Amino acid sequence: MTSTESAPRSLPEIGRLAKAATRQIARAATTRKDAALAALADGLDRARAAILAANADDVAAARAAGREPWLVDRLTLTANRLDSIIADVRGLIALPDPVGEAFDTTVLANGLRVHRHRVPLGVLGVIYEARPNVTVDVAALAIKTGNVAILRGGSETLGSNQALMVVVRGALAQVGLPEDAVQLIEDVDRQRIFELLQMHDVVDVIIPRGGAALHRLCRDHARMPVIVGGVGICHLFVDASADLDQSLPVIVNAKTQRPSVCNSLDTVLVHADVAARALPLIVATLAPLGVVFKADPRALALVGPGSAGVEPAGPDDFDTEWMSLVLGLKVVDSLDEAIDHIAAHSLNHSDGILTEDVANAARFINEVDSAGVFWNASTRFNDGGQLGLGAEVAVSTQRLHVRGPMGLRELTTYKWVATGDYHVRA
Amino acid sequence: MTSTESAPRSLPEIGRLAKAATRQIARAATTRKDAALAALADGLDRARAAILAANADDVAAARAAGREPWLVDRLTLTANRLDSIIADVRGLIALPDPVGEAFDTTVLANGLRVHRHRVPLGVLGVIYEARPNVTVDVAALAIKTGNVAILRGGSETLGSNQALMVVVRGALAQVGLPEDAVQLIEDVDRQRIFELLQMHDVVDVIIPRGGAALHRLCRDHARMPVIVGGVGICHLFVDASADLDQSLPVIVNAKTQRPSVCNSLDTVLVHADVAARALPLIVATLAPLGVVFKADPRALALVGPGSAGVEPAGPDDFDTEWMSLVLGLKVVDSLDEAIDHIAAHSLNHSDGILTEDVANAARFINEVDSAGVFWNASTRFNDGGQLGLGAEVAVSTQRLHVRGPMGLRELTTYKWVATGDYHVRA
Repeated sequence: MTSTESAPRSLPEIGRLAKAATRQIARAATTRKDAALAALADGLDRARAAILAANADDVAAARAAGREPWLVDRLTLTANRLDSIIADVRGLIALPDPVGEAFDTTVLANGLRVHRHRVPLGVLGVIYEARPNVTVDVAALAIKTGNVAILRGGSETLGSNQALMVVVRGALAQVGLPEDAVQLIEDVDRQRIFELLQMHDVVDVIIPRGGAALHRLCRDHARMPVIVGGVGICHLFVDASADLDQSLPVIVNAKTQRPSVCNSLDTVLVHADVAARALPLIVATLAPLGVVFKADPRALALVGPGSAGVEPAGPDDFDTEWMSLVLGLKVVDSLDEAIDHIAAHSLNHSDGILTEDVANAARFINEVDSAGVFWNASTRFNDGGQLGLGAEVAVSTQRLHVRGPMGLRELTTYKWVATGDYHVRA
Repeated sequence: MTSTESAPRSLPEIGRLAKAATRQIARAATTRKDAALAALADGLDRARAAILAANADDVAAARAAGREPWLVDRLTLTANRLDSIIADVRGLIALPDPVGEAFDTTVLANGLRVHRHRVPLGVLGVIYEARPNVTVDVAALAIKTGNVAILRGGSETLGSNQALMVVVRGALAQVGLPEDAVQLIEDVDRQRIFELLQMHDVVDVIIPRGGAALHRLCRDHARMPVIVGGVGICHLFVDASADLDQSLPVIVNAKTQRPSVCNSLDTVLVHADVAARALPLIVATLAPLGVVFKADPRALALVGPGSAGVEPAGPDDFDTEWMSLVLGLKVVDSLDEAIDHIAAHSLNHSDGILTEDVANAARFINEVDSAGVFWNASTRFNDGGQLGLGAEVAVSTQRLHVRGPMGLRELTTYKWVATGDYHVRA
């Protein structure tokens, strides 16, 4: 792996080595895993020049190939971005190790002592695109949680990933952990992805980090569990009792702080009782920030059909994740209509209510079935760091195992432990 | 559904009705769900004659078709078995409702108040074979946990299932819950299973209850998460310090109490230091109970190669789930060799150690990575009822979401709820 001259490992070989590494990393002491993270952070700092040079080659090749500017931007590592990657690795050291935790401890009527014992998930398969930061991010999260990781990054970023992997594997070796606990699929032929998705005997979970097409591919072909997420059509409902002055900054934050991500706002629903005041305010506040609007007929009538940047909403507009400075506007007559609209159009990622009415907030929280539900807070909080998990590998919109941020604890499972005095089942 | 004259519902129709029922059952009060369970138990009691008559027809048809005796046995309902089914439904009423529980409650540094709020999984797809008891079992568990269930039982048991479903749906209607919260796929064409496995927009999880072939089919074709389980090659390791007199009843219990189930014992590993005494005792104790043995060469030498019921183990014998009164015997030189053997041959269902040595027990518990790990206790305890969960829908051997018994709590997921004072992300 450290030599670019040798042939890339085959998938069966990677799987065999991954499986062989699981037992050792799973039972590594917290101190040893944290030492590996410290070695990784130090190693990245020392290898800056090599990493940035490899990345510059990747970036030049992507530019020469005429790749899209957003892809080139995601691909690019700078000294600042590398600092931030290193800081994230160091940040993980301080977080508690979930592995080994005993919970649901109980003594049954027959005297059998039972608890659940937290253990790593096993082997994570992570498929991602042109973001070299994900390579370090997933490697560090896997090490912290005693998991093994098989990484398949985008072909555009192979050189950067290889340079980063030298450091990752060096850090593992330095503290006596198996290097093969983190492996990169260096054969970037797309066929290898399909091969990986068949390896249910090795890979315990597939985590695709990318767009809807990658998720679909994984869901359609994976023979093991997949954690899908990272796609959201997010709503804020401005209820009749909302404090409008305080609501505006929340809408601004949810829409404009980082419009290209999954927890950014797509649609504002406004209660009819306050729409005549709220909608013009929303447009007047957000339009100068570059936001353009897709308004339903009632909203359109209130904000002035001729306003610059306001267009009638088309038939699919309320089912679109904008990923940009576009915002849907719709008037609803009641909390029920808001909840029904969200049930019909949300992708169950992040939805919120702005209200002073406790009963309406309680109904919204109970009845809106999204991974994150927000009352008087921005949808942008649906994030591992923001919700206090310290780190995340993905934001899940599926229902099994994890919803919302997949942090350290969500990278574990448990086993049942029962201790008896030669107990037999009656 | 109550009329056998109308055409069976199509899968898309079932899916649409299931999805429509989710919101109402998900937010039903505990008292209403418990009232539905009471109505179900009462209804089953009242409908005894119709249920047993329908079942007798199914059994007669299966016999006439020359089906296997074990299948006919599983298919058969008797007054006693119906009593036990009714008692299980009543037992669920007393168990706590997991839905609505708030957990991981915290206030972040910025004042945002955050918790996780427990909610139903959504729509369960359960595929099973000739066991009509599963129909009631899953219906009752789904009702208790606010889930919707789509059931696909074996074709042999269609008449029984239809008779049971009349009662299930009547009970839901009686308390004002949507009848379509539990639906049976009455079109028993196998093609409908493949159709169900494609419905990832409706079905949140597929739970196959059956053999390895059914699990494989679901893993290969499902486009949604699958909970697989119910298959185990289970071990007990008799360590050098085990109390042999107390160990024998544990081995007897694990092997013979119910040999046809997944948590029954398949292989006994015996430490070489005690093998000369332990192995003849094991054979002498279990042989009269009808157990036959597959012994490795060292074990064979100790129990006497000529003993009745003792055969040399063949090459695949330690990789076979016996489901019958067959027991593998093997001598190992150390705890490490026992752990290695289990790592190589277990299906990670239920494995245990019999020892008086606390350090060895601790290592075994840490290093054996099975859904249930037992110290001085029978593997037969790996069961929802036995581990104090009260009920279970399956015993999972996969790692995501649930390991071991899938009880009420494991039939739920959560959403994040964040409450702020018009908080924005910095």
